[in-house]
Amino acid sequence: MITITRRERFNAAHRLFRPEWTDEKNLEVFGKCSNPNWHGHNYTLYVTVKGDVNPETGFIINLRDLSRIVNEKVIDKLDHKNINMEVDFMKGRLVSTENIAVAIWEQIEPEIKALNAELFCIKLVETENNYVEYYGKR
Amino acid sequence: MITITRRERFNAAHRLFRPEWTDEKNLEVFGKCSNPNWHGHNYTLYVTVKGDVNPETGFIINLRDLSRIVNEKVIDKLDHKNINMEVDFMKGRLVSTENIAVAIWEQIEPEIKALNAELFCIKLVETENNYVEYYGKR
Amino acid sequence: MITITRRERFNAAHRLFRPEWTDEKNLEVFGKCSNPNWHGHNYTLYVTVKGDVNPETGFIINLRDLSRIVNEKVIDKLDHKNINMEVDFMKGRLVSTENIAVAIWEQIEPEIKALNAELFCIKLVETENNYVEYYGKR
Amino acid sequence: MITITRRERFNAAHRLFRPEWTDEKNLEVFGKCSNPNWHGHNYTLYVTVKGDVNPETGFIINLRDLSRIVNEKVIDKLDHKNINMEVDFMKGRLVSTENIAVAIWEQIEPEIKALNAELFCIKLVETENNYVEYYGKR
Amino acid sequence: MITITRRERFNAAHRLFRPEWTDEKNLEVFGKCSNPNWHGHNYTLYVTVKGDVNPETGFIINLRDLSRIVNEKVIDKLDHKNINMEVDFMKGRLVSTENIAVAIWEQIEPEIKALNAELFCIKLVETENNYVEYYGKR
Amino acid sequence: MITITRRERFNAAHRLFRPEWTDEKNLEVFGKCSNPNWHGHNYTLYVTVKGDVNPETGFIINLRDLSRIVNEKVIDKLDHKNINMEVDFMKGRLVSTENIAVAIWEQIEPEIKALNAELFCIKLVETENNYVEYYGKR
Repeated sequence: MITITRRERFNAAHRLFRPEWTDEKNLEVFGKCSNPNWHGHNYTLYVTVKGDVNPETGFIINLRDLSRIVNEKVIDKLDHKNINMEVDFMKGRLVSTENIAVAIWEQIEPEIKALNAELFCIKLVETENNYVEYYGKR
Repeated sequence: MITITRRERFNAAHRLFRPEWTDEKNLEVFGKCSNPNWHGHNYTLYVTVKGDVNPETGFIINLRDLSRIVNEKVIDKLDHKNINMEVDFMKGRLVSTENIAVAIWEQIEPEIKALNAELFCIKLVETENNYVEYYGKR
Repeated sequence: MITITRRERFNAAHRLFRPEWTDEKNLEVFGKCSNPNWHGHNYTLYVTVKGDVNPETGFIINLRDLSRIVNEKVIDKLDHKNINMEVDFMKGRLVSTENIAVAIWEQIEPEIKALNAELFCIKLVETENNYVEYYGKR
Repeated sequence: MITITRRERFNAAHRLFRPEWTDEKNLEVFGKCSNPNWHGHNYTLYVTVKGDVNPETGFIINLRDLSRIVNEKVIDKLDHKNINMEVDFMKGRLVSTENIAVAIWEQIEPEIKALNAELFCIKLVETENNYVEYYGKR
Repeated sequence: MITITRRERFNAAHRLFRPEWTDEKNLEVFGKCSNPNWHGHNYTLYVTVKGDVNPETGFIINLRDLSRIVNEKVIDKLDHKNINMEVDFMKGRLVSTENIAVAIWEQIEPEIKALNAELFCIKLVETENNYVEYYGKR
Repeated sequence: MITITRRERFNAAHRLFRPEWTDEKNLEVFGKCSNPNWHGHNYTLYVTVKGDVNPETGFIINLRDLSRIVNEKVIDKLDHKNINMEVDFMKGRLVSTENIAVAIWEQIEPEIKALNAELFCIKLVETENNYVEYYGKR
């Protein structure tokens, strides 16, 4: 079992809230993350891919391909954006770190598979004090 | 010459733009930082204070006091906020890292002086790739 | 499978030694960590919790709750303390990083379960060069 | 299940290329990493060992022993070296991060076992943006 | 006095030696850094620029311009290269961190001046344990 | 003006208190840092040296010499020690970060001068949130 991990970064605005709840309820559950005027983060994303080492190249996957996929499918859509308002794959989803991580997995998993490798983990770091790791439906 | 530095952090949304400019002009000058729907950062703030070491305490300044000042005057106003819309001391100012650093200096400089120490530097880190340092009007 | 991790920190003094051993034996096994006058570390603690994402909140666990548990049960008891002398849950235990990690697990595991989540990993970093990860009795 | 991890570092030169390929083919597959005049990295190595906690010492393995093994078998052979030309255990192997990680595992796995512990993971960080983790043949 | 700093990175091979010295003399002075088969590093470069804050943009210098200059004049020439053999501006110079830092200053100083700002400091980090800072001829 | 900086680390126990004060007074001024049973830190030390670049070696100072001086005069005396009880050069001094930094300067300044270089700055990092920088009596 061997994996390779690529780190990418994006800076974005977001807000945690449920539109059907009152502001008080949102504040009670989500705290200052529910601020109606948004706040933001420097997100750090680690994409871990599992596979066999190709004897010709010594690679599980060419990092150039992995980086291209992650940038096209994820970073270009999230970086310097408002995640609640502008990101197609987050439409209708509560913008928690957990939900962003799952959505990123869905975005890139088929692309990784098409390169004969297997997506193993999405790690999404929101601040130096908290991060989420998603390993798919297993 | 001896200094002590306290690190504090805040997460906020912002946008770089001039309201009197067209969207095209804003995009040309500020790039993706001009996104009308905001984006955000994990800002890291380093406040450096200069002074004499008090022979009784061994301190230039008690870090408890320094941290209290920085939190009351700066962090509480910026953290989980929209800097363009919600921060009194940034009203009417373009929200560049340079301008935030200068405004933070103005917020806390009198408070530091009142404790018989001297504000020496405000370092504001926006991303791992860029930061501003302001040393006052000298 | 999805997890969320919260980082907390504490600074403490400790010593590695067995009282029934001679100083020479302690020095031979534990090296400079056996210094009778103590030494200390900035410990960094990562608490990883596993669970289902609550569809209402988008959370595995509310980080406010997780942070409160870790602070009440662990950080408040360890921070700025002598781990050998002052920490109830380390009484009678050799103060190795391994043993502290296991004891921290025992302190918070029931509290996490009470919130319908599952403690997955305690990672305790002693220096930039070594850390322990404990996954419970599995 | 409990593990302990030791970090060590080495700085080395290397090149990605297959001698039977043309320079064009090497450039196409390996990009600028195929530069015939070499380039280099500050590699960071994390060696994770699994085992039972010895009730006498509180240790899975004495870090002094672990560090000695890693330095003798790995660091002394790689540090300030040309990995393609000078490292016996990389002879005939393409010098990808994946292959270095696997070779490091082979170098130290018997030594760890001789100390009644089990090698669990080799993590090799090439740059802040990519790393490989190898867990042995499982 | 206000400055802005841009971080960039490059990975390169190098060797410390004087061709007119014997291998023994080179080894005595430069230690393992004199290895004839090269070694390498992940260098981190911080370029600090001083100036007035433009009231229209809130910028000392547009980071897009600063990053372009540093990439064209420095990073593109050093990244994935052998500094001794392949870098025009290091020809005939001993490849110490000090000398690389001074040469980088010379490369970009006129370009920064042409944008009405002033180069203030080149900080070049070779490993986590050592770095050089050059402030020009003052 | 050019400087080179060497990083070294030590882990130590300490306590902030004045023996002539009551426990209450010590607690009021020094907070939890006055704990009679000690606490501790992973201290990180940056020693910055200024000088001319030797045209033969390309060095301000040979890092091997700088590291030897810092280890002999500072690290060996502080690492895994109780700073209040066991460090000769801290005898009779309140063990604040400020005072340790000044004492470290005094320990190594003559040794640096003897190598025809000039000690420029001692930076002592106590936690990720605070550090002291001492530039000598200027």
